[in-house]
Amino acid sequence: MTNVSIIGLGQTDVSEKWETSLRHLAWYAVEAAIDDAATSKIDAIYVGNMLAGELSGQRHLGALVADFSGMRGIEAVTVEAAQASGAAAVRQAVIAVSSGLIETALVVGVEKSSDTTGSALTTAHALSLDADYETIQGLTMEAAQALMMRRYMHEYGVEVSDFAGFSVNAHANGALNPLAMYRNRLRAERFAAAPVVADPVSLFDAAPGGDGAAAIIVTRSERAEDMVPKPVHIAGSAIATDSLSLSDRKNPLFLRASAESARKAMAQAGVTHADIDLFELHDSTTIMAALSLEAAGFAAPGEGWMLARDGEIARDGSIPISTFGGLKARGNPAGATGVYQIVEVARQLRGQAFDNQIDGVTVGMTQNIGGSGATAVTHVLKV
Amino acid sequence: MTNVSIIGLGQTDVSEKWETSLRHLAWYAVEAAIDDAATSKIDAIYVGNMLAGELSGQRHLGALVADFSGMRGIEAVTVEAAQASGAAAVRQAVIAVSSGLIETALVVGVEKSSDTTGSALTTAHALSLDADYETIQGLTMEAAQALMMRRYMHEYGVEVSDFAGFSVNAHANGALNPLAMYRNRLRAERFAAAPVVADPVSLFDAAPGGDGAAAIIVTRSERAEDMVPKPVHIAGSAIATDSLSLSDRKNPLFLRASAESARKAMAQAGVTHADIDLFELHDSTTIMAALSLEAAGFAAPGEGWMLARDGEIARDGSIPISTFGGLKARGNPAGATGVYQIVEVARQLRGQAFDNQIDGVTVGMTQNIGGSGATAVTHVLKV
Repeated sequence: MTNVSIIGLGQTDVSEKWETSLRHLAWYAVEAAIDDAATSKIDAIYVGNMLAGELSGQRHLGALVADFSGMRGIEAVTVEAAQASGAAAVRQAVIAVSSGLIETALVVGVEKSSDTTGSALTTAHALSLDADYETIQGLTMEAAQALMMRRYMHEYGVEVSDFAGFSVNAHANGALNPLAMYRNRLRAERFAAAPVVADPVSLFDAAPGGDGAAAIIVTRSERAEDMVPKPVHIAGSAIATDSLSLSDRKNPLFLRASAESARKAMAQAGVTHADIDLFELHDSTTIMAALSLEAAGFAAPGEGWMLARDGEIARDGSIPISTFGGLKARGNPAGATGVYQIVEVARQLRGQAFDNQIDGVTVGMTQNIGGSGATAVTHVLKV
Repeated sequence: MTNVSIIGLGQTDVSEKWETSLRHLAWYAVEAAIDDAATSKIDAIYVGNMLAGELSGQRHLGALVADFSGMRGIEAVTVEAAQASGAAAVRQAVIAVSSGLIETALVVGVEKSSDTTGSALTTAHALSLDADYETIQGLTMEAAQALMMRRYMHEYGVEVSDFAGFSVNAHANGALNPLAMYRNRLRAERFAAAPVVADPVSLFDAAPGGDGAAAIIVTRSERAEDMVPKPVHIAGSAIATDSLSLSDRKNPLFLRASAESARKAMAQAGVTHADIDLFELHDSTTIMAALSLEAAGFAAPGEGWMLARDGEIARDGSIPISTFGGLKARGNPAGATGVYQIVEVARQLRGQAFDNQIDGVTVGMTQNIGGSGATAVTHVLKV
């Protein structure tokens, strides 16, 4: 159990925001979190971002966000761990508050993709893979996940259509979330017939990129109790890594970093799988959702997809996932995604999830994954 | 005074390393630090890097370094604060060890520029400036510093030749350092006659980019005492920020982040200016050296250059700077530079500076600056 709690939440909708700059996007989430926390006394800012250098010609987001948010002067850095940058930034804030050197920290995950189009985006996302052994051969993020999915289908004798439940669930929940990028429902029979992105990963399988920002404010738990009616405790927080390259893994279907970070975060929180009421996982594709459920211990190897088939991942199932639409329907603004996941679980725990609310939630878990699984960041939240 | 001490140091020489990959470069510094510390039991890695995405097609360096250094699985992230990324990563390690959540942390600053040539490098460095208000107008890092230098000359009635002492000192010290990029001595009369990079910043004024990596290993001070003969205590550690854009500052000749981070770090360490035996500052250009000396309180506004003229910055002067050549002669491998500065001060404090040694050193300060001064990271080290 860490001694750190969340006292403020902010997020923008995820969409293509051609008319919103990177700095405004970050500010909208920061402003919302400050309003929610009813404090603007922040001691440090941790920005989660992956691609602003490549896509907006801007690095140095720590100073930018501090400046543009009216906090010029304060300590501020960017934390990067590919697509897991958002949750990695939250982890630094947890460490900072735990140290006693920082009293109140702001985390903002922000990603702005819509200034860039076409192959530049695919190239940018592939920076998370191994440049010397994977990207140089032409591997993209979608292709890496396609390799894993094909292997999974071969290994366990399942079909493309067996993964449909993940996307159907994500869209069903996204349809209820006014901040989601895609609010259309998806019929299972359309899933396997969708246009292919990287065989067998299809348009209805891969999560869409998008512009968005999400923010949280954290402080020591004993202060938090006095500051807001319902602080959300960060009971567990862990980062683990794996080989950068898929080919270096003994078993490409075992997400070791996912397993290890979940094990650590759950041990810190003192919770078992039965205690966890929802799990916001990294469903960048359906295969990643299946493998995450397996690695984190909610399903045996080869059986993650069955939880989708059987409706166990629905909001009234045994282990709800993607309760606001997940990466697939809420959208996947790369470096911001990990912060969205934490904001969403915190809203569930506070009972502020509106149409997306799950009943009786007291423990939630998030997991944000970078690359093909080389970084995984897991948090356990409690009220 | 923090409770964190340095138990291991590693660095490569700075040069153009066309035949060394980014991962090898990082590993050489990591290996040296592990050998020096006589421990490979590391709990977390903080990578300081600015430009690997742009210059090497590789992000996700946390997982890459953990993997390639034989530490696959451990917690690892990248910390970015433009050209101050190296020291910003050290700051995260200090916070992590202070929190008690991490026992031993490795910091490696690494930058590999030599895969890229020409304007791409200039463009990459300019990512640290304000994309929407500065870079879009064509401003580069060199041009931003040229504006500050021209203003300084106008404001205080000094000439280009008055800045010569900074470069002469840097090259005199670099000549003694086998790891320095440039080991040639420089004559003062050549300084003002050098080819211009961005008027009035010249070839003998601006620090050269270069490839390099530097690493430190830190742990709690009480453990450090048992592990190595001469641990170096991180007595103070602070990050401060300023406006990203030069035009947003009331006084463009006052490096507010430099002043503020120095004030905080010195207060934590309980030292005054008279206690500081050397100051490894961010001499990316001579104007930045002059302004840093002034902001950090070693000279009155407009008088920083006089310390160079009068020889006070020499190794036997009152406030030695660039004792191994500084950014100007040791070289400036962007995201690695801040870690080099700390390795160098630690070597001085240990009495392991060989020909570059200053006598009787017990307190040293480092300051790493990002952009035109929007981030400054100051550390005070003691034995």
